Amino acid sequence: MKSTKPRVVVVGAGFGGLRVARALRDGSVDVTIVDQHNYHTFIPLLYQVATAGLEPEAIAQPVRRIVRANNVRFRLARVTGVDVARRRVLTDDGEIEYDYVVLAAGSVTNYFGLDSAADSSSALRGLDDAEALRSRILKAFEAAANEPDASRRTELMTTVVVGGGPTGIEIAGALSELRKHVLPHDFPGIDTSHARVVLLEAAGHLLGGMHRSMQRRALSDLEKMGVDVRLNAKVADADRSGVTLVSGERIPAGTVIWVAGVRAPSLVESMPAAKGSLGRICVTESLHLPDDDRVYVIGDSAHVGGPSSLPHPMLAPVAIQQGELAAGNILRHIACMELERFKYRDRGTMVTIGRSRAVARIYGLRFSGFLAWIIWLTVHLVWLIGFRNRALVLVNWAWNYLTYDRGVLLIRDRR
Amino acid sequence: MKSTKPRVVVVGAGFGGLRVARALRDGSVDVTIVDQHNYHTFIPLLYQVATAGLEPEAIAQPVRRIVRANNVRFRLARVTGVDVARRRVLTDDGEIEYDYVVLAAGSVTNYFGLDSAADSSSALRGLDDAEALRSRILKAFEAAANEPDASRRTELMTTVVVGGGPTGIEIAGALSELRKHVLPHDFPGIDTSHARVVLLEAAGHLLGGMHRSMQRRALSDLEKMGVDVRLNAKVADADRSGVTLVSGERIPAGTVIWVAGVRAPSLVESMPAAKGSLGRICVTESLHLPDDDRVYVIGDSAHVGGPSSLPHPMLAPVAIQQGELAAGNILRHIACMELERFKYRDRGTMVTIGRSRAVARIYGLRFSGFLAWIIWLTVHLVWLIGFRNRALVLVNWAWNYLTYDRGVLLIRDRR
Repeated sequence: MKSTKPRVVVVGAGFGGLRVARALRDGSVDVTIVDQHNYHTFIPLLYQVATAGLEPEAIAQPVRRIVRANNVRFRLARVTGVDVARRRVLTDDGEIEYDYVVLAAGSVTNYFGLDSAADSSSALRGLDDAEALRSRILKAFEAAANEPDASRRTELMTTVVVGGGPTGIEIAGALSELRKHVLPHDFPGIDTSHARVVLLEAAGHLLGGMHRSMQRRALSDLEKMGVDVRLNAKVADADRSGVTLVSGERIPAGTVIWVAGVRAPSLVESMPAAKGSLGRICVTESLHLPDDDRVYVIGDSAHVGGPSSLPHPMLAPVAIQQGELAAGNILRHIACMELERFKYRDRGTMVTIGRSRAVARIYGLRFSGFLAWIIWLTVHLVWLIGFRNRALVLVNWAWNYLTYDRGVLLIRDRR
Repeated sequence: MKSTKPRVVVVGAGFGGLRVARALRDGSVDVTIVDQHNYHTFIPLLYQVATAGLEPEAIAQPVRRIVRANNVRFRLARVTGVDVARRRVLTDDGEIEYDYVVLAAGSVTNYFGLDSAADSSSALRGLDDAEALRSRILKAFEAAANEPDASRRTELMTTVVVGGGPTGIEIAGALSELRKHVLPHDFPGIDTSHARVVLLEAAGHLLGGMHRSMQRRALSDLEKMGVDVRLNAKVADADRSGVTLVSGERIPAGTVIWVAGVRAPSLVESMPAAKGSLGRICVTESLHLPDDDRVYVIGDSAHVGGPSSLPHPMLAPVAIQQGELAAGNILRHIACMELERFKYRDRGTMVTIGRSRAVARIYGLRFSGFLAWIIWLTVHLVWLIGFRNRALVLVNWAWNYLTYDRGVLLIRDRR
């Protein structure tokens, strides 16, 4: 018995794609959500996995758990393209026919053409990245523990973070705490106070796009925590043993973390459509391709309006709101109703810097310090999908807060 | 300043090696414990990771956490051999000089010469194995969910477990519960009651070496749980799509798990010493090589007495007791005292079969059913090293017991 309901294929089980699937459940459409992983990754907390604060399982949840509904199926496959003429999504495991497709393919690390950085530094876009980064940091400390030369030891214990956006700040802060409160107990044989965390930002301020007061607070908090913040520091080259700045300065490091920016993934690039900034696909304000109202693009993959319009920030709330609208517009199109236009409701932004330190802007109000941190903590706990994960995360955080102990110092090589 | 204390190098951070390091801490020796992983794996609970009951981090603990002591160092390296003439342990990261060495290198999966099984089936000896096996089982179900042919679907949902020892029984029981209580909710589109668990045992009974009543109880419990137990079933060949028995019968399966036995690892094989059963090194009753009282071998790697003597079972309690004795004998040798001889104090054995089902023998008393399961649970919780891990495991178990829910259904490919 073949269903005659319109078929909606959602590419990607990130925040945007999941919202589409949830908004369409129990509707009179058949939904297939496709992802190369069988789990959703809670990207805002990836830096906690990378710095041994949380185990990977605490921030991942199987897609099937999240979208349990009669009219929603999950398909484990890597999407390689979309054939808009034949209305098929192409995957490494066959084709999937659609009446509507929603591309919610997210973004990938942007090395800005610096191949050496792509080859030698650690990114932080998925669970594998986070585990690999954790292994790399800890291996550098293991090597330092076995290194007789003092200056080489300090180099091994140096971590360079490239990029002063929210992720760069969160990871620099977490690394600084790891170095101060955790590693001294595990590496009593070496002086971990020589371990350095260097944060490089190409612009003249951190947290580009945020309010001046938040930028300044982040800078002063990081410096209080002992992070060596370098503004106007542009990376010219990176390799396995450090980075070289455009100024000519060389910073030797055991670990280089590249969180300088993101761009559209190759799947998005391969789409025969006009591209906006960072390779994002230009869509109408109704979120579909200008010449195909059955192909929707949302989240990091989408640039709403023409290339001349200002792109939305690549943030989870944008993807979620666009997912909600895309799902609604598909139902409206089926019902021959007029499509609605996307308007971003910016409720605010928040960045955690360390234990009891954060900056937040919520509905125009600005917070910093302990209060901002409590807000950040509460929002992220409530947000994390699925009660069980939330409980696990809470146990971990409570434990870490009370004891400064961290138990996830495992080196797990994926090769 | 160079220490003049005798240097003891311990190869392997399993149960045996850790016990040596702990027994020697604060003693007048310098101890280096070497392992290729920076964490100890609690092998008795690996099957829980493979069947999505526990996250990997719950059963692993960094070695540095476990052996914090002034005279104990940890070295992350893969040991490639021991040069007994020059008294050096050879690693992929340089050599380590010793005055005494303790080989506690454990064991690896024994395929009994069946290369096809080594290539195509999943083993269960380390954390990576367990995660890979979990991924393989779940991927087979993902493939089944996308398979239109009913008989092929049943094949994909079939798991064959080769080996009716404790591990085989534990994993068959856990798989049966996964199939009955967990997967139906996650895969509503397919009839998971067609999923089969087949347990193959070459001998005429399960749990070889244990008491007849325990063997019978394990068999009847597994059959009640719906496991298809085949006694006297010898595997002739295995490939990615199933196994062929010596009888000629073919059992197609999406997942084949090989837990038919273990043997000494290649490091142990390469030692220039007489070998006993399963490639284990023959040692004196004082646990050192017959012709070298500075080289100790313990646990799965050791065969105490000549090849004609009965080997000890390859169990954690044996390794732990031998670790204690080897450490003591090294101190005795340094003090020119007479060495002691190993005598295994067998306190008992226990095997869990499923939720509320286990068999146990403790100090000669035999238990089964719920009581044995409570004993099993208590012993393993108390045993798990490190409070934090214990708390995590407890939270997971309590949650699983109350809800039959499992949250660790992540497919994490390591390639």
